[in-house]
Amino acid sequence: MTKRILPLILAVAGIPGALAVEGMWQPHQLPALADDMKQLGLELDANTMADLGAFPMNAVINFGGCSASFVSPKGLLVTNHHCGYGAVQYHSTPQDNILQHGFLADTLADEKPPVPGYKIWVTESMVEVTDKVIDPIGRKVQGADYFDAVERNKKALVADCEQREAVRCDVKNFHHGARYFLITEQEIQDVRLVYTPSMSVGKYGGDIDNWMWPRHTGDFAFFRAYVGPDGKPAPYSDDNVPYQPERFLKVSASGLGDGDFVMVAGYPGSTDRYRTAEEVGYYFEHYYPAARELRNELIATIETGSEPGSAERIKYESTLAGLANYAKNFQSMVESYGKTGFGPAKQARQDALWTWVRGEGDQAAKYGNVKAELDRLIDQQWQHLERDLISSYFRYNRMTSTAATLYRLALEQQKPDLERKKGYQERDMENFVAGLKRMERNYDPAVDKAILHHLLSRYDALPQAERQPVIDRIFGLNGESDPQGLMTKLDAMYATTQLGDLDARLAWLEQAPDAFEQSADPFIRFAVANAPHVLEKEKKSKDINGELLKVRPKYMAAIMAYQQSQGLPVYADANSSLRLSYGTVQGYSPQDGLVATPFTTLEGLQRKATGVEPFDASAQQLALISQRQYGPYADKAVGSVPVNFLSDIDSTGGNSGSATMNGRAELVGLLFDGVYESIIADWDFNKQFARSIHVDSRYMLWVMKELDGADNLLKEMVIVD
Amino acid sequence: MTKRILPLILAVAGIPGALAVEGMWQPHQLPALADDMKQLGLELDANTMADLGAFPMNAVINFGGCSASFVSPKGLLVTNHHCGYGAVQYHSTPQDNILQHGFLADTLADEKPPVPGYKIWVTESMVEVTDKVIDPIGRKVQGADYFDAVERNKKALVADCEQREAVRCDVKNFHHGARYFLITEQEIQDVRLVYTPSMSVGKYGGDIDNWMWPRHTGDFAFFRAYVGPDGKPAPYSDDNVPYQPERFLKVSASGLGDGDFVMVAGYPGSTDRYRTAEEVGYYFEHYYPAARELRNELIATIETGSEPGSAERIKYESTLAGLANYAKNFQSMVESYGKTGFGPAKQARQDALWTWVRGEGDQAAKYGNVKAELDRLIDQQWQHLERDLISSYFRYNRMTSTAATLYRLALEQQKPDLERKKGYQERDMENFVAGLKRMERNYDPAVDKAILHHLLSRYDALPQAERQPVIDRIFGLNGESDPQGLMTKLDAMYATTQLGDLDARLAWLEQAPDAFEQSADPFIRFAVANAPHVLEKEKKSKDINGELLKVRPKYMAAIMAYQQSQGLPVYADANSSLRLSYGTVQGYSPQDGLVATPFTTLEGLQRKATGVEPFDASAQQLALISQRQYGPYADKAVGSVPVNFLSDIDSTGGNSGSATMNGRAELVGLLFDGVYESIIADWDFNKQFARSIHVDSRYMLWVMKELDGADNLLKEMVIVD
Repeated sequence: MTKRILPLILAVAGIPGALAVEGMWQPHQLPALADDMKQLGLELDANTMADLGAFPMNAVINFGGCSASFVSPKGLLVTNHHCGYGAVQYHSTPQDNILQHGFLADTLADEKPPVPGYKIWVTESMVEVTDKVIDPIGRKVQGADYFDAVERNKKALVADCEQREAVRCDVKNFHHGARYFLITEQEIQDVRLVYTPSMSVGKYGGDIDNWMWPRHTGDFAFFRAYVGPDGKPAPYSDDNVPYQPERFLKVSASGLGDGDFVMVAGYPGSTDRYRTAEEVGYYFEHYYPAARELRNELIATIETGSEPGSAERIKYESTLAGLANYAKNFQSMVESYGKTGFGPAKQARQDALWTWVRGEGDQAAKYGNVKAELDRLIDQQWQHLERDLISSYFRYNRMTSTAATLYRLALEQQKPDLERKKGYQERDMENFVAGLKRMERNYDPAVDKAILHHLLSRYDALPQAERQPVIDRIFGLNGESDPQGLMTKLDAMYATTQLGDLDARLAWLEQAPDAFEQSADPFIRFAVANAPHVLEKEKKSKDINGELLKVRPKYMAAIMAYQQSQGLPVYADANSSLRLSYGTVQGYSPQDGLVATPFTTLEGLQRKATGVEPFDASAQQLALISQRQYGPYADKAVGSVPVNFLSDIDSTGGNSGSATMNGRAELVGLLFDGVYESIIADWDFNKQFARSIHVDSRYMLWVMKELDGADNLLKEMVIVD
Repeated sequence: MTKRILPLILAVAGIPGALAVEGMWQPHQLPALADDMKQLGLELDANTMADLGAFPMNAVINFGGCSASFVSPKGLLVTNHHCGYGAVQYHSTPQDNILQHGFLADTLADEKPPVPGYKIWVTESMVEVTDKVIDPIGRKVQGADYFDAVERNKKALVADCEQREAVRCDVKNFHHGARYFLITEQEIQDVRLVYTPSMSVGKYGGDIDNWMWPRHTGDFAFFRAYVGPDGKPAPYSDDNVPYQPERFLKVSASGLGDGDFVMVAGYPGSTDRYRTAEEVGYYFEHYYPAARELRNELIATIETGSEPGSAERIKYESTLAGLANYAKNFQSMVESYGKTGFGPAKQARQDALWTWVRGEGDQAAKYGNVKAELDRLIDQQWQHLERDLISSYFRYNRMTSTAATLYRLALEQQKPDLERKKGYQERDMENFVAGLKRMERNYDPAVDKAILHHLLSRYDALPQAERQPVIDRIFGLNGESDPQGLMTKLDAMYATTQLGDLDARLAWLEQAPDAFEQSADPFIRFAVANAPHVLEKEKKSKDINGELLKVRPKYMAAIMAYQQSQGLPVYADANSSLRLSYGTVQGYSPQDGLVATPFTTLEGLQRKATGVEPFDASAQQLALISQRQYGPYADKAVGSVPVNFLSDIDSTGGNSGSATMNGRAELVGLLFDGVYESIIADWDFNKQFARSIHVDSRYMLWVMKELDGADNLLKEMVIVD
């Protein structure tokens, strides 16, 4: 497949001179974009940037759902505060609440040991393996069999790749299955917490300001990668030494101005820019409104069950943040959908595509019936929306989900490793165990019970056809459940189960299925009874997904052919693989009559302060601002130390923590969020509203120097003007 | 007293070239401001503008708590939709809901008759009478006696003035009693509703957008003044003919641009720019937070008691709007107080004043002990904050307040007219009766009962020292009241009272006090029993206010002398008398990282539309916008028809409906609100945040022409380019 890459540069209405660059580019695509990037301000060679082994890409880190980058020759790395949140929370106790007050290791010996399961990765290579994944599969293989065949081929490639030590491999699907790449990442297992500012800096504005502009969040934290004395990745040990990355980013103290070139390298999670208009309708008119509602209910349930500041609440802070984050996300999706006319626009684009398919040339022969097939499969997928939604949120209940995964592990362990479900293979075990251990810090029986009660109550209101006899029987539900009766039932289950105990959980790792089947533990009993239903649903889902894996690539091929005919860019949807986005610093107009300017300042931060979380800037910080103690970090044009800035960088979740770099690939900030109006950009990159939010490197340096006295780190990094 | 008037022109930080002009000027002050106004863009002669009998001041109307202006030779006048709201509501029924759908009289005969009590006034003269009010009072007269003496002197002047027919006179206190002016207004009694756009235009954005920017509200409505066939003001009659004002405003269809000169003539209600720092503390740290809370409670009470869209809810829409308006207002006050540092700034200014007083010269001898006297009186005023607050909100309960005013009327009628309390004199009777009649449209017994229940529950929680034995006895309260028991009590009272009946209410107008004292009506009985307490409180209040009337002028004299010594302007606090403010069209920065641009557009209105009130723009309006059917009303710089605009005009409540005029005194819009951050401007005009919001004349014309087909009115007005 040959592709011509055309960058899409569009003028933003209402903001003179503004540009917007859509696309999350695979590194190998960058040379084709060289002229465009140069024109905007890139000073490096785009060919070098495509080389994963060279600067700056080899300084870019996969931080497990986030991104990070090396900023010193001794393995110091920087990511977002909210990306390091779980690790900080893990080390935080009511007695030593470093989540609240921040933490700075004065020496290497003071750094906090790694959290079980937290690792980092650096992408070493991305090699196309489409032929190896698809070609061996017979043409007649259908449904779940096709799905399994793809998975088997991928796993074989991964297993072969992981013969090498200290690498993690993955075969990722690009363009909805049209292409597959084998990605090899170097894995570093010993990552220690070095420095985090206080919550009042790192999460200033909290959930209120989350996704919002104006913003004043110091969303950064520092970790350090360690390796064995031989320089090779090794599990945590006192003998380990700081990792010496080949290259690292210098940190800019002179920063940026309005309109300056910026680029972001990281691991954007997922986007949906090539879905059908029908899928858009399902998501925006049904799924998002319903899921937003359910998330808000779970938030209320957790908050009702745990006093602010209590040990219970600390355990659920991270869960709450996640629930709130996407409740707001979905709310924005729904709002933008109504306001921007995305639905009709998508339909119009799709109509244009099929008009083109039916036009001159051989397109009709190639793609003519793909859409009907795809529609049929998608309709099947959405048949049980309400039931599937509730069912998926059982993951927030730790007792039922832990029991289910433990039993599933026992079942999967009966099979050869390669045939096991993803997440249950030998390579997953360390992470699996870490999850069981983490429950010590993120599980409270009373809160967990309240969550289960709520989910079961929602389940109980489902129509008869959507009910599940096993759930009805085990929890005594009949569609007219008495809330108090259900609670009595759950009280008994939580009083009896041993799964709240770490040793008991770990002990189940060694058990065969029959031990589960004979267990009296109420949650294990539920997991066993429910398993056939789960497997049956999985089989159905696999059948559909297998078909989709065959049909979607054809649909994508039609889209790509059409877009090329229109001179429009073709980049793959985000899939947590390494990408680079670029653009410029720029504001936008969130609404008629309002303009968001691209920088915020210390004084704006001060004006937001109320003394009450999440606007609880410390007295010390406020005093420094009142005294205009800017250090060398003030910006003349801005008239103060810039705190956060806006760019038109194309980004999504997973990009959090990404180094924001200038044209010389110096670190000028960290991407940490998008504006509220840009949330729908996961589906529809709207040049008028798609803006990423970055913490300015000058604010990071100011906090480190003036507020937290992190001179040791400032000395360790290379700071340039 | 001689005063030098110095205009205050200050550059607004962060908005290059922006000016802010503080001051609500009395017309006689304008000649002194002529140079300054000319420099900003005034094309008229400031001397003519000081002449109340000349253009444009003689086109400016006092619309009873709002402002308005004549816009045709046949008495057509324009004001805000929210100023005409009560009249539109009065004529609205579930069958013919003109509040919802709008109304346009095709001919004079179709115009809606005046609402009882609704009149308009045009200021004829303002003559200083300080000597006649104060000088005759003996130096030893103190407290309530002084208060009464001032009131008596004022009433005598008013009575003398009102010997002339069809005028209303008032003696108003300027500079907190330092100066008094006799104001004579021509009174027009027959004012008919001519045209109002639909609620979806006139109240677009509703309470959500109230006080907010960006804004897209078509806040305008047209009425017509009628007089007798002889051209003299007369009560409503079929024989009346349209009033022919000497002058009226032409309407500009070419409008304004960013930075253009604008001025606003109207009746600003009241400001508090010369209070003490201690008073500021009382208001912002105690009164506003508590009153905001109580208002929100009453809103919840009314909303719980009336279904949206029901006949009951329609009756309370106006009450709800008023409650919500000031709940938001007080909320903003509290927020701004915390953010802008007004408290410490006021204290610093006050400290500077007293440093000056204690400095060289004879100031210390003149003003030295004024502050201590004032402080003592103010402390007394605030002694019963919580009790007085609850007590003042009983005005929202129509049964107790109607009974109290009816009985009070009977008591006052025992005295000679001049000695009666204001509001109970012969001149007030028409208004009094109109209020009793209006209850037919704004009273529902169930809602009224719920309000009373809430207020009494709040009363019941007061500490023992603040309790009132009569209330305890009549409502059976003891500090631990049972809500259900209280409701049973109120049920019985509302079942028994006759005051819900219009004839019964009107019949009480003829009764002497003893008829009240013998009545079995439960609310009349409460009014009679409570009256001594009310009178006693009034006496105490008068004592303090009488003292304040003597002390505040001395304090003001100190402030004025000090301000003059600093070259700062001296204008009187707003007091519902005719004023002129001027400034320019300009945006502002509401927050760090955001800029409010000065114009909004039709497209912005469209993007706000959700189909749900208050964002329920009609399909017809949205279609016109989609088709870019701008007519001749588009603005090139704005790229569309401007809907609302911002200026730095100094304004407050009462300015609503004021003609916004360009340098030739053509109508370019109507002032209808201030931005959220400007609410505190009643106390502290902050050049950075004080912005007024206007509806653009081009949007008014667009709605009239394109949406509502009000061609008859467009033809009647003089529209200029």
